[in-house]
This record gives sequence, structure tokens and C-alpha cells, in this order.
Amino acid sequence: MARDPKYDPLFEPIQLGPKTMKNRFYQTPQCNGAGQDLPGSQAGHRHMKAEGGWGAICTELCSISPETDLTPHRLGTIWDQGDVINYRHFNDGLHKHGALGGIELTHSGPHSNNWFTRAVARGPSAYQSNAEQQSYCAPMYDEDIDDVIRLHVEAAKRAVDAGFDIVYHYVADSMLVLQFLSPFYNKRTDQYGGSFENRARFSLRLLEETKKAVGDNCAIACRFSVDALLGADSIEKHEDGMRYLERVDKEGLVDLWDIKLGAYIEWGEDAAPSRFQQVNHERGFVEGIKGVVTKPVLMVGHMTSPDDMLENIEKGYCDIVGGTRASIADPFLPKKVDEGRLDDIRECIGCNMCVSRFEVGSMLVCSQNATSMEEYRRGWHPEKFEKTKEACSVLVVGAGPAGLECARVLGERGYDVHLREAEPELGGHLRDVLKYPGLSEWGRVTTYRETQLAKLKNVEVHRGTGRMTADDILEYGADKVVLAVGSRWDPNGLSGATGRPIPGADASLPQFATPDQVMAGKNIGQRVLVLDGEGFVHAIGMAEMMADQGKDVTILSQSHIVAAYLERTRETANLQRMMHEKGIHERPMHWVESFVLNGDEVMADIFYVYRDGYKRFQKPSPDGGLPRRVGNEVETKAFDSVILCTSRWSNSELYEELLGRKDEWAQNEIAAIYRAGDCYAPRLLPDAMFDGHRIAREFESENPQRPQAMIRERQIWGQETFPKLGDREVNG
Amino acid sequence: MARDPKYDPLFEPIQLGPKTMKNRFYQTPQCNGAGQDLPGSQAGHRHMKAEGGWGAICTELCSISPETDLTPHRLGTIWDQGDVINYRHFNDGLHKHGALGGIELTHSGPHSNNWFTRAVARGPSAYQSNAEQQSYCAPMYDEDIDDVIRLHVEAAKRAVDAGFDIVYHYVADSMLVLQFLSPFYNKRTDQYGGSFENRARFSLRLLEETKKAVGDNCAIACRFSVDALLGADSIEKHEDGMRYLERVDKEGLVDLWDIKLGAYIEWGEDAAPSRFQQVNHERGFVEGIKGVVTKPVLMVGHMTSPDDMLENIEKGYCDIVGGTRASIADPFLPKKVDEGRLDDIRECIGCNMCVSRFEVGSMLVCSQNATSMEEYRRGWHPEKFEKTKEACSVLVVGAGPAGLECARVLGERGYDVHLREAEPELGGHLRDVLKYPGLSEWGRVTTYRETQLAKLKNVEVHRGTGRMTADDILEYGADKVVLAVGSRWDPNGLSGATGRPIPGADASLPQFATPDQVMAGKNIGQRVLVLDGEGFVHAIGMAEMMADQGKDVTILSQSHIVAAYLERTRETANLQRMMHEKGIHERPMHWVESFVLNGDEVMADIFYVYRDGYKRFQKPSPDGGLPRRVGNEVETKAFDSVILCTSRWSNSELYEELLGRKDEWAQNEIAAIYRAGDCYAPRLLPDAMFDGHRIAREFESENPQRPQAMIRERQIWGQETFPKLGDREVNG
Repeated sequence: MARDPKYDPLFEPIQLGPKTMKNRFYQTPQCNGAGQDLPGSQAGHRHMKAEGGWGAICTELCSISPETDLTPHRLGTIWDQGDVINYRHFNDGLHKHGALGGIELTHSGPHSNNWFTRAVARGPSAYQSNAEQQSYCAPMYDEDIDDVIRLHVEAAKRAVDAGFDIVYHYVADSMLVLQFLSPFYNKRTDQYGGSFENRARFSLRLLEETKKAVGDNCAIACRFSVDALLGADSIEKHEDGMRYLERVDKEGLVDLWDIKLGAYIEWGEDAAPSRFQQVNHERGFVEGIKGVVTKPVLMVGHMTSPDDMLENIEKGYCDIVGGTRASIADPFLPKKVDEGRLDDIRECIGCNMCVSRFEVGSMLVCSQNATSMEEYRRGWHPEKFEKTKEACSVLVVGAGPAGLECARVLGERGYDVHLREAEPELGGHLRDVLKYPGLSEWGRVTTYRETQLAKLKNVEVHRGTGRMTADDILEYGADKVVLAVGSRWDPNGLSGATGRPIPGADASLPQFATPDQVMAGKNIGQRVLVLDGEGFVHAIGMAEMMADQGKDVTILSQSHIVAAYLERTRETANLQRMMHEKGIHERPMHWVESFVLNGDEVMADIFYVYRDGYKRFQKPSPDGGLPRRVGNEVETKAFDSVILCTSRWSNSELYEELLGRKDEWAQNEIAAIYRAGDCYAPRLLPDAMFDGHRIAREFESENPQRPQAMIRERQIWGQETFPKLGDREVNG
Repeated sequence: MARDPKYDPLFEPIQLGPKTMKNRFYQTPQCNGAGQDLPGSQAGHRHMKAEGGWGAICTELCSISPETDLTPHRLGTIWDQGDVINYRHFNDGLHKHGALGGIELTHSGPHSNNWFTRAVARGPSAYQSNAEQQSYCAPMYDEDIDDVIRLHVEAAKRAVDAGFDIVYHYVADSMLVLQFLSPFYNKRTDQYGGSFENRARFSLRLLEETKKAVGDNCAIACRFSVDALLGADSIEKHEDGMRYLERVDKEGLVDLWDIKLGAYIEWGEDAAPSRFQQVNHERGFVEGIKGVVTKPVLMVGHMTSPDDMLENIEKGYCDIVGGTRASIADPFLPKKVDEGRLDDIRECIGCNMCVSRFEVGSMLVCSQNATSMEEYRRGWHPEKFEKTKEACSVLVVGAGPAGLECARVLGERGYDVHLREAEPELGGHLRDVLKYPGLSEWGRVTTYRETQLAKLKNVEVHRGTGRMTADDILEYGADKVVLAVGSRWDPNGLSGATGRPIPGADASLPQFATPDQVMAGKNIGQRVLVLDGEGFVHAIGMAEMMADQGKDVTILSQSHIVAAYLERTRETANLQRMMHEKGIHERPMHWVESFVLNGDEVMADIFYVYRDGYKRFQKPSPDGGLPRRVGNEVETKAFDSVILCTSRWSNSELYEELLGRKDEWAQNEIAAIYRAGDCYAPRLLPDAMFDGHRIAREFESENPQRPQAMIRERQIWGQETFPKLGDREVNG
């Protein structure tokens, strides 16, 4: 098919200083967790987006010098010739597909603990980072300002040497240049502090020297946080925000305005989860910018569809659309628009699982795209699938996320697939999850796969089959079987931390409910207790849902914060605000010792998880080391209903029965039975889907249940020019 | 000098299966944060201990397969030939010095999220990890048990191929084998679950097959947590603990018993900070073990001096002493004992800063030994110092940690050093810190350096000089000057998070005090509020001190937990217990908006840091995005005294005056003036000392204020056999 002409504006080339961008699809700087430590994975991930049609693709934060090291986050570095060589490879792969490469040169001031390099950060003034309690910076004297500008310019030269087309001037995310611009950080009384002109001086000097050094060979993009969202304490759009844009644009030193929002401490306001922000949530902040600047304007804001993107260009909000999470979910989004294959686009669901894995110091994952970060090390291509040589029919039991993904990939690979779902609707546990406040976009995981499966002639989807028994499966006539029958909540309050059920907890009683029972309509009383044992979306989702129904909600967690995993998706601050606003009582570091029924109500004995005495293990106590209890044992509270989100069980009974009847497999010509997703072991959405995807990719391997080898990236002694102390690289 | 014969028992060789250990100094498995990603730093750190005389040196946890990946912690792997090559280098360096190499083969079950490899963990039963809320394991069926044993045995073979002398059977820290042994995890009803004999079966089978495969070529050590410290829920010494030792020893499959304590969730109970545990805190648990086993017994427990170690051997608690943190603080401890140089030993202070940096995903640091993990990448040797060629006199102003370390290293390097301290006592802010409950061992930082400086004839130490003025320094006659005059607490409650003082806070008033003022004897009332803005030892130390004096103490933090940094030193659980036991009221996620005096008392307006409404930034609000407030604004509470541990200022006035008089430097023949430690930028103890050490090591560089280049370890495209998809390494 051909492109719908209405999308033509998205494909018009645009001039960025000395460079031409072939279209308007731009991957803004994005952390993928490979940084410079894993150059193969780093490049593989970016090259795929270039192949998919993105016009410009940037690195993540890229440290200009060992003095700014954001360990434990794995980020980019442009410190030395080794980095230049790796980035040359990075850029060659982009250029091959006509995409431009951009580098976000970064100095983070005291927001770097410099735990790895052990250098001391410098900043405009002496202060403690508002992101890292133990990190302070040394104030810059004149010689330091010259020195740091030199470091920036040398880094910019290395970047151009490495083939980058776009070099960033980074005035966002509370990084160094913004620290100079913002009175929150900048307390200087010299020519670099005080008035707006003085606070902007560092930025203008750096821009000038960068332009002079590399401006003829690359475009200079300014990534500007037009509003730090911290009110009058920092940059506000209607004050210094617009003032800065006008002032700097006038100098003609910037070739592209990359507009974003927020500060480092809450960068989730910019890379906003769909729970809290809808598409185009940044429009109000971008509005009017094109009126005051002469150079192209780029905007971001959870645009997931070409229509969202097109609208912003046509309405004159911007010239270029930034799609970062969109480019992770579907590296081929531009190509699919160009080929008129809109319904093949995997739209980002805004779950921020990508962010979460970068935050923990690993590589990103994506709920929509299991191949992200696997392009190099596993050789996976999101749109290409090795056709199977074996004529083989596969029965996939269960159309939850893992089953859907497994069936889709098996289908793409040419297998004869039967996907059977007990319920009339596809989606498995997602059918409930997307009903939680703010999570409706998660439904795209199901709808995309439903559409794709419908296009695969070799895949039959059977809905509403009811639960298949072992007999059904053995007699079905498939050569191979994949069970993807999911998991269920423990009905008795079992959690990993205590390793046992909570006495008195019983979901078969009217006073207790699991999330599934709530969704199925079980009656919930006015005073609700929610137990958060997983720290993911279920307990907090239940709590908000109940509060929205006007109930009096208390949520307990054994962790230091409820919904602990969602700290990593950058949702914690807004979840805390939400609980505060909706009057949800949170009790972190507390759990329930036992429940006792009292008529219709439940009495919960709530305890503080650290109630036992300290130094208790100094000597073995006569009873063998049992903690000695001190202070109040428990606080007894009455509730009408208790929702148990404590831990899950794989639905393993079916597999175990089949395992017990293994001798019948051969009789029924069943070569193998595998388990995909939560029914193998419960886990988070993108991981369950990865499992289904991987099994399908490795279906012919000896045992698809266990992963195949992948490429590793690390030094091996004597197998390469392993640096010796004598020939140190210059990275100081 | 020669060794004192009383220490001879520490130097007797001992047989471990087919291997002979030359003495009794053993570095038990220890995480240094280099793992397999940084093989140069990994080996450099271990080789130094071998050179220093340790008889056996082990790896950290070493994953046997990608199915167990403890990302984000950087740990060992023995997955493939690349790992074998790197570990061969690791072991060659140990053997050169006559030390044995040990490897701790690890499978962690569901305690691995496997965020990097994305494999699914397996365990004896299906359960949720008690360490990682979102991590579950797949239960092992018979074929899985065979498979995991195969993975272990293959890893053991690779280990021997890599030259390891000691291979571990790891039955501690809640790892897989212990998960089989412990009824907390093992709910199996087959031959591997239920009775003790059944729960021990997996361990015995694995031991047998390991012994068969590699037993002739290496010693098999069993690292056993004789008491999980979780009471009857898990392994207790007087029950399964002693039973397991007796049962397994009888089989003759183990050549060394490496005894430790505790569980993975609280491994700080084993690697215990000196705040909570004294030397030999594990004795009570080791007592009697030698009575039931026939093979050598190794014990640990914060032994920092040769006398602690000797006593345990002589009293028959053990045959071998494990010193891990001791070997980080002083890799040359054995050699120094052997040479009768006891007062040259740097004793571990038990601050667990080593642990903290591993915990955050970086490399360890040490408050006593600034060269740890710098052996390879910076080429630093803890006992060897490049002699200076320049005849140069150096004035070091201030004998806090950084000044002491800088003067010591400059002295070792042959400079003519004058160290001048204003106070009669050395130690700077440590003089106060070691008065906090449990931190007295921190004083060793000062005493070691005082002793060493006294031995250096080219170093003069001047005490009680009073504060030096700029004139004093200019006229002193030194060629170069290092200022190490430390930092001070902000007197007005300034913190990085708010970026401004707290209205009404004023340490010049009787109701407010900084820690320095408290230590100087300022009067503190009955109702005390402590503000924890740094999350380190000061606020919590003040709070405990005040509680010990019988005061009513409340501590506030803007973080999710008070003393947030100490989560990383594994102190949080016991600090929470301490606060609970001593009745300290903790208020995480709260801070003070303003103080108002009310007669002699102070009214504090306390607010919840997330009080402002959520989704507040969806649209720019007319006032420019200021958070809209909801719910209760503040809660007003009365206190008699407020202790301000919010943030620090470098004492930079002296340097700034000198900078302003730069023209006078030459007149006074001063070539340069540098700043070391907190007076450059405030930071944590080991980092301030590192700064002093580094400046002295790099004193002749162009600008010692900024670090020199160091070796980096990462792949560079085309510069080595960079793995291609075709020639995947076998690591599945």
C-alpha cells in the first residue's frame, strides 16, 4: 500500500543548520541502558530505528568527562578515542539508512555522585544536589568556567569526529547549563549570576564556542526545559522560559529547539506514564514558542500515533515531532505510515517499563516490543522472522499477553497455530488491568496482537472455548503445545516476605477478596484494607479504584513505600500525591499478623515490620535466635473488606497433570509441551511477553523452555588491545 | 623486624583436600563491584591481597548460568570460555604469590530478577522472593533438578579449567542450595522436600557430582549459614544447622567448612557494621562446630586485628580466619604481622562503605584504604609510593581525614611536609563522629595516620596552631599549599531539596543547634526535633544520642526512609529497630515549612512533601505551574530544641581570600594552592580521604585539583575479537 497523502507533512525534509533531516520523525535523547559499556547493544537498538524510518536518532545523556559520571545508570560517554570509535560505528549504521545522529553532551553538576570515577563535580555555586542527598559540588571560579567550557568543546569536537550530525546544548533536566540559568542553583554574584542576562551568560559563551568549533560540520540543537514545573523557584515558561528562547535564538547559535518539560528530580513529568498524562500533555507549554523563535521547533509529549504527530505540525505547535517511547514500542512507525500500514503500528502504552529497567541499572524493556535491546545480542528484528522449516502445528492455550505474543510470533514464523482462549475476550489478566484508573492504554497490548493475528492466515483464534482439560489438549491433535494459562492471586494473604498465609485471611469469605474477585463484582464494604505484597500496579490500582468509589481506603506494604516497583517507572511522586489527594491512608513498613472476624467486620492486627529489638542477633538467644519483641506488638483495626494483592501462583495444575501423563504424549503424537509467561512463573507484563516471544523465536531449539545463548559484551584478557597502564587512554 | 612467635599459629600451612593453604589468612567470597565486567579491576584488587600475604582469596558471588543474574549488582560469572580466560588471569596472579583462588558458584533462585539476561529463575518450589517483591521462580521438576545440577557441575569444571583451587558449595545467604534445605522455601512433597534428609538431598547430590567431576583437582568448600537468624522459619544452629554439618561432613565430600550467619535479606548481620556488632559477634554460632566436623573450619566476624584472629584459632573456634573487610582495609595485614609491623596495620572500622558502593552498583571504596579498586585502573599500590623528584616543601592546613591522608601520602612520597591542625587533637570532624553511639571504631582512621606520620621523618605535625589566616599561609614559606579545612553545617536549615533556609531556623538562637554545637555542649531541651537532610550518620547519630539521654526525639527526612544512605551499608533494618526500641519518632517524607518561637519553645510547621495535588502539571496553571495545594497544609508541633543536620558548606573563605591575593603567591614563592576533602566540596568520609590521597599521588601533574586519566575497561569496535552473531559464545 501507499502512504495516505494527509501524512505528507510528516515526510517533508527539513534543514537543521548544515544538515538536512529527511522527515519529521525524531528520536530525542533516550536512555536505553546500554550506554558506552555495551556498544553493540547500544548501536543495534539505534540502527533498528534508522531502518524503521526515523529521520534523526540521538544517544542518551552522554558524559563529556569523567568528572560527570551518573553511575549506577549506564549512560554514554564521549571521553576518549575509544568512545569516538564506538560512536563512529553507531553513526555509520544510522547514515546507512539516511538518518542523522545526535549526541546529548552532558555535565550534570552535583547530580552525579561520581561513584565510579570518584571525581568531584563542579557547579555554578556550592550546593547539595536536590536529587542525591550526599552529593555536593565545588563552586566554579573563573578558571573552572574556562575549564568546563573547554571540556564541553573538546567533547563536541570528538562527537563530530565520531560522525554525529547534531550536537546538543543541554539546558534541561537540571543539568549544568540549566543550573547556571536557574536561580534555584545559581547564587553567584559575579557576571554569571543574578540578572537573567548574567545567568544566561554561561550558556551563551558555551554555545558561541561550540558553534565556532563545530558549527560548520554539525547542527547545534538546544534541548530546553521551558518550564521546570517547580514554580517561581526555577525556570517558568512565562518568565525566563520564553525570555531564554527569544534571547538565544536571536544570536543564531542554535539550529534546532528541542523543547521539553520538568526537572531531573521528576523527569517522569516529561517521560510521563499514561496513568497520569494523556497524549500532548506538553502542548500548553510549547504553545507560542514558534512565534518567538526563527529555528525549527521540536516537541515531545507521549505522541504514539501518526495522527497525534501530524496534528501538532499542522496546528503549528512544532516542525518536528519527538517520539522516544513511541520509537521503542515501534521502531518502524515511520515506515509503516509511509507504506499505509497504520494498523501494523505498535503504539506505546505509556507503562514506563522502559524507564524502570534503565532506572535499576539494566537495559530497557518494552511491553509492546520484546525485541528492544535484543537487536544485537540476540539478533532479533521486530519485523523479520525466520520462517520455520518444520511443518508443525502448535496449540497455544490461553490468549493473555504471553499467549498472544507467542502465537503471533509462531504465526509470523509460518507455523500452523491454533490459539484458544477460555473467555470470549482476549487479553487475559490485562482485561482487568486496563480498568484500573489511568491504565486504559494498556489495552493496546491486546488490540495490536488481535489485529495482527487476524492477518495471519496460518493462525486460528478460538474465543470462549472454556478451560481446556488435559484430555482436550492430548486429543487436540497438535504437534506441539504451549500453555499460557497465566497466574492467580493467593487467596490467603501469602507473601514472599513472610512465606506463609496470614491467619484468618480467606478469599472464600465475603470479607476478603482478590483483585480478580473484585473485578468479577464481589461486594466490597466501606472500610477497605488493601495489602500490597507485589509493589506493582494491582494493589495501588485497587486502592485508587476503591477511593474513587468513595470508600475509606488503607493500603499496607512491607516495603519503605507502597507500589515500590513504580518508583522505577517514575510514578511514585504522583502516586503519593494521588493517595494524599484521595485520602488513601498509606502504611509502608507495616503488615498484618492475623485477621479475626467480628460479625461482618474484620479485625486486622497490624504490626510494624521492624518491631523486633535491634542487636537481637549479637548472641544466639536461648530459643535459637527468634527476634525478641519490644514496644507495641500490634494495632488492631476494623475493616469491612480486605483486598489481597500479596502474591501470585502460576496456574500449573494443567501442566502437572500433562507431565504425569507424559507417556500419552507420544500416543497422541505430541512432541513437546512448553509453558509461556505467568504459568511458568508469575512476572511483570513485559517479562511475561518476552517469554512468549522468545519461546516462539527459539521454537526449534533443543529446549525452548530455557533461553539460547546470546552475545556478551565484555573485555577478555589477551583477546584484544586490553589497555595497559602504560598506554592509558586520555580521558581525564 | 621479625614476626612475634606468638603469631606462628596464623602462619602454619593447612591441608584443604588436594590443596595446601600456606597460612590461615583467608579472604572469604567478597563483592568488589568489578564482577566479570571489569576483569582488570577485579584481578588487580585480588592480586594485591595475594602480594600482601593472604593465603586464599575468593571471588564474589559467581553466577553459574545466565539463568541467575543479580543485575544491577556487578557480580562474577563463569558462563563461558571468555570467563575462563579472565579467571585464569585472576588465578595466575594469586598463584604467583603462593595464594589459592576460590570461586563461589552461585545460583540464587528467585532472588535474581534476571533483569539483564531476562531468563526465568528456578527454585525448589514456586514462591515469591522475600528479597525482590516482583520476582518469582518456576518450581523444579525432576528434569529441572538434573539440569540445574548439570549447570553447576559444568561451571565447576570451567572453574578448575580456569585454575581455581577451591570450588564452593554455597549453602548460605538464602541461595538455591539453602532454599532446598530451608522449609521456609522448600514446600516439596517428593524426595527433595519434607524431612531433613529430603531437604538435604539436593545438596548431597550436588556435592557428590561436583566431587566426582573436580574433587581430585580442587578443594571443595562448603559455605554454610549455620543460622539464618530467622528463628524456626528457617535454619537454626541448634536444629538443622548442626544436623547439616554432621550429616554432610560424614560423607567426606567437603574439604573446608566456611561458616557464616544470616540470610540474604539481612546480610548486614554477617558483614555487620561496627555500629551494631563488635568483633567476634559470630563466635556464639561457631562454638561447638569443630566438635562435630572432621574438616577444617573457617569463621568470620569483623576480626580486624591479628590478636582477634589468633585468639579464635587458639581457643579452638576455628582453624582458619576469614577476613574480608579486613583484607580491603589492609591487603598487607598478613605480611605486616609476619614482619612484626603491627602498628602499620590499617584496621577496618566497620563503616561498611565498601558494601554501600557495591550495593549501588559501582565498585567498593574503603575509608581506610583509598587504593582499593584503584590497583589496576590507576596503578596504585597501598604500600608503595613513587618518590618525588622535586625538592618541594608542602604546607597541609587541617588534619581532618583528607588532610591526614594527603600529608601521609606526600610524606611517603618524600615531600617535606608540614601538617598544621588548629585544634590540639587530630581528626577534624571525626573527633565528633566517633562519639556517636556505635561509631567509636571510626577513630582508627585518625590513630593509624597519626602513627604513620610520626614515623615519617620528613613530616612535621603541628597541633593546636589555631586557625591559620591567609597571611600566615602566604608567609609560611612553603612551596605548595594544600588546604584541608573541612566543612560546616548550615545554621539555617538549608537543604538541597528546598534550596533555601527554613524560615525561623537559626543556630545562633538557644533553641537551634548544629551537630558541632551539640558536641561543643550547647544545651538541648527535652523535646528534640532532628532534621535529616543528608541521610548519612549525623542526623541518626544525633537522634540516638539524644534518645540515650532520655529525651523525646522526632526525626524528619524528605526521603522515603531516614538515614537513606545507610540502606546501602545494610544498616536500615537495625536502625529502624533501634528507633522503635528507643522510642524515636520517625517521619519520613516530611519536612519543616517554617519555625516560630513561642517563649522558650519552637513551633515547627511540619508538612508532607507530596502534599501538592497530583496531575498538577497536566496543564500550565495560570500562575505558571505552581503546585496546587490540597489536604492539610501543615501540622504544627512544639519542640524545645531543633538539631539541624540539613546540609554543609565547604570552608572556602580561606581559599577565596588567597585566590583574591594570587599576585602575592609568587612574591612568597608559593607555586600552587590546592584544596582537599570537604573544603573543596563536602562528601562522605572515604571520598574525602580519596581526594586527599589522589592529590598527593598526582601532586606533580599539571593540575592535581582535577584527576588524571585512568584505564577504562570496555569493548571498542574492531579493536579486538568483538563477538559477532555468527560466533556466539556458549553461555546458555
